[in-house]
Amino acid sequence: MSDTHWQDALDLIRRGSEEILVEAELIDKLKAGKPLRVKAGFDPTAPDLHLGHTVLINKLRHFQDLGHHVLFLIGDFTGMIGDPTGKNATRKPLTPEQVAENAKTYQKQVFKILDPARTEVMFNADWMGRMSAADMIGLAARSTVARMLERDDFSKRYAGGQPIAIHEFLYPLIQGYDSVALRSDVELGGTDQKFNLLMGRELQKQMGQSPQVVLEGLDGVQKMSKSLGNYIGIAELPNEMFGKLMSVSDTLMWRYMELLSFRSLAEIEADRRAVAEGRNPRDVKVAFAQEIIARFHDRAAADAALADFELRFKAGAIPEDLPEVTLSLAGAPSIGVAQLLKQAGLVESTSEAFRQIAGGAVKLDGEKVSNREALVSGPATVVAQVGKRRFARVTLTP
Amino acid sequence: MSDTHWQDALDLIRRGSEEILVEAELIDKLKAGKPLRVKAGFDPTAPDLHLGHTVLINKLRHFQDLGHHVLFLIGDFTGMIGDPTGKNATRKPLTPEQVAENAKTYQKQVFKILDPARTEVMFNADWMGRMSAADMIGLAARSTVARMLERDDFSKRYAGGQPIAIHEFLYPLIQGYDSVALRSDVELGGTDQKFNLLMGRELQKQMGQSPQVVLEGLDGVQKMSKSLGNYIGIAELPNEMFGKLMSVSDTLMWRYMELLSFRSLAEIEADRRAVAEGRNPRDVKVAFAQEIIARFHDRAAADAALADFELRFKAGAIPEDLPEVTLSLAGAPSIGVAQLLKQAGLVESTSEAFRQIAGGAVKLDGEKVSNREALVSGPATVVAQVGKRRFARVTLTP
Repeated sequence: MSDTHWQDALDLIRRGSEEILVEAELIDKLKAGKPLRVKAGFDPTAPDLHLGHTVLINKLRHFQDLGHHVLFLIGDFTGMIGDPTGKNATRKPLTPEQVAENAKTYQKQVFKILDPARTEVMFNADWMGRMSAADMIGLAARSTVARMLERDDFSKRYAGGQPIAIHEFLYPLIQGYDSVALRSDVELGGTDQKFNLLMGRELQKQMGQSPQVVLEGLDGVQKMSKSLGNYIGIAELPNEMFGKLMSVSDTLMWRYMELLSFRSLAEIEADRRAVAEGRNPRDVKVAFAQEIIARFHDRAAADAALADFELRFKAGAIPEDLPEVTLSLAGAPSIGVAQLLKQAGLVESTSEAFRQIAGGAVKLDGEKVSNREALVSGPATVVAQVGKRRFARVTLTP
Repeated sequence: MSDTHWQDALDLIRRGSEEILVEAELIDKLKAGKPLRVKAGFDPTAPDLHLGHTVLINKLRHFQDLGHHVLFLIGDFTGMIGDPTGKNATRKPLTPEQVAENAKTYQKQVFKILDPARTEVMFNADWMGRMSAADMIGLAARSTVARMLERDDFSKRYAGGQPIAIHEFLYPLIQGYDSVALRSDVELGGTDQKFNLLMGRELQKQMGQSPQVVLEGLDGVQKMSKSLGNYIGIAELPNEMFGKLMSVSDTLMWRYMELLSFRSLAEIEADRRAVAEGRNPRDVKVAFAQEIIARFHDRAAADAALADFELRFKAGAIPEDLPEVTLSLAGAPSIGVAQLLKQAGLVESTSEAFRQIAGGAVKLDGEKVSNREALVSGPATVVAQVGKRRFARVTLTP
């Protein structure tokens, strides 16, 4: 690879990654010009992907665009063990059939981003399921208690007197061993995965392999936490997707674009300057929403969603700059509409809310509310309106 | 079982045990009158038993005399793993052939004490070898890091910054699981095994079995450490055994008898009183040595050894009360005879030792030393003599 090429590749790879360990090794691997084996591990239990999840998948796509090979690893081995203590009834072991089903759902979703020709879907039960207790002991011998207790969550729990079951020390080793089994050159993960990703490096070194480069901090779910993007499922209908993306605040929008858009950072920066100089941020948001819908549906669906949105919202004369309000659901699944209006400061009391509803003056997302007992489910963002002048963009957090 | 019977049984079982956990449960088990399954685990690597090891085996024999069933467990599973890190080249994995060979040697030795009809020799590789990595993870889920770090040696090493490999946390669980696999009612072990023995109780409870009673402190090797008894192999020739037992000091003799004799504590107490009132302790020691030799050889061998001993020692006019000297070999396998004499205070200098050897005045165990470069191997106890008046009973410790 020529100097310019690997430098461009590195720039693309760096975008959105918190940390690359070790960047010098990544440069060597890129310079070698061979297709790299790029691993990312996924939980077999939750195949319902939200935009937050796609940050990492987008990064895999970047590697594919650069000619590399993606190892999409489904960690079914531990999923099939379930909760070995039997204490957690909700963590029932998955059957092989459930795993296969979930894997299919995953693939249907991720192949909207990934190139199937450059993606290998793997299951770690393929090698871990064949491993004997003696092999497991051999693997356990490769790290120490002190090393494990360096992991942030373990050290906190240990210091706080919360129990750590011994098998929890085995899971990072299994994840690390997966890298050995896959001979991965690069592994991607969220910041909370850093310790486990580095375990892969350690085990590969111990077992005579060239250690994988670790890209961490690719966790959109974390980075977009308590924000709407986490709750936009990539399988949602174009209209829903469009509405939710348009509800994102004008500030947060830039963060979303950095993480989710396939446009270059330079282009996004140009948009930002244009908005600073007076361009309507709504236009930028529309273009971004169109890009996302086109990715997960198609261009026609994106256009139709825009048309529908304009019909419902622009016509409704909702002002450009809504006050933003964030309300916590405090663990509840929903909130009563009267409470919502009161807490958002749009009415003085719930009895006023009831009167306004009875008078036909209350709208949510442009639709009139007639049932005073109506519940608004969260997490979500809704535009709430009382009469002609009181508006708020209300984000309900869990 | 009648009240008197189980009380007698309890007295016999208590003898030499440091602690019984939980004694009330043992009483219940004894009262139930059914043959109990009494487990003891043995290392597959060191089948060369010394008197120290037989303390625990004697206790197994007591259980057999009371009608119970002994599970003689050879822990070949971990032995066949060896040192999983590969760092310790001396801990090579044992082959199944070596294990079988060692087991044969064990049986040849222990059946001098145990009743083969009431002994089952078991190998934990039979169940552990079939266990999968997933099963091992399930087992590991049954205890916690904090619980493991309660174990004395682990907590010391952790506090001292010495590494503890994670598989070391799995070994107590395996030992505990052996009790589940064997459905043992009682397990015997040394004080250093207490934690692991209790792990058996825990796992049995978790898996719905009645927990085993633990008898700990049966470790003759520990209790007799740095003393001669540890170094008397039970396969040694009658003459050697006799000589070594006669070299045991008059004080230590009582401890040995408590641990090793099959005579009742009342009888031993009667001997002790007799000696206090003037009986020659040598006579008691001779009777004890005869008992031990008869156990591991036969009565005729015991008599012949006594006759031989009298010929060599009594005739040699060695005084009754020798000064006792303990010398450390500081890790060396042996010590030069001249050094031994000097350090024991029998000569002023090694050059004096050389002169005395040249003059034919030096004897070890009654035999003249003529080679001034002769080495005395340890650990051992020898009676050293220079001329007609200088004597010492020299114990060489490692």
